[in-house]
Amino acid sequence: MTDYIGYIAGFLVSFALVPQIIRVYKLKSAREISVLYNSGMLLGLFLWLAYGIILGLVPIIVWNIIGAILAALLLLAKLKYGR
Amino acid sequence: MTDYIGYIAGFLVSFALVPQIIRVYKLKSAREISVLYNSGMLLGLFLWLAYGIILGLVPIIVWNIIGAILAALLLLAKLKYGR
Repeated sequence: MTDYIGYIAGFLVSFALVPQIIRVYKLKSAREISVLYNSGMLLGLFLWLAYGIILGLVPIIVWNIIGAILAALLLLAKLKYGR
Repeated sequence: MTDYIGYIAGFLVSFALVPQIIRVYKLKSAREISVLYNSGMLLGLFLWLAYGIILGLVPIIVWNIIGAILAALLLLAKLKYGR
């Protein structure tokens, strides 16, 4: 039951990144994306993943893998489209 | 020990939102911010908070309270600066 809360939570939070990614690729502009903080976020997501693995929390593991992939896409967009 | 991983993780991920907020307020432009998804993210953060409270995971509770405040600030910026 609690896991379901985690799954829905992770879905909402992680997919909040998707339109950001789409807009950046569509506008071909990543002016409002910061490489430093995006990299920090990516590292943070890996740490949450480690946390989830250690405590065996499946929703956290799942959504931080997905989140890390999305954050990486945003970082790639920044490198591709510059400022 | 595991909690420390969670605290660092949450710090990195939550503060990835801060420069985004600063840029939006500084540029007075929220064009790349989506109200729908930002609201969804805010709801997701509340659900992660509930998940953390149920399972007694302090780093998750702490960072989702902070994350929700930051997401709310971003939403306010969007409402204030429009597109």
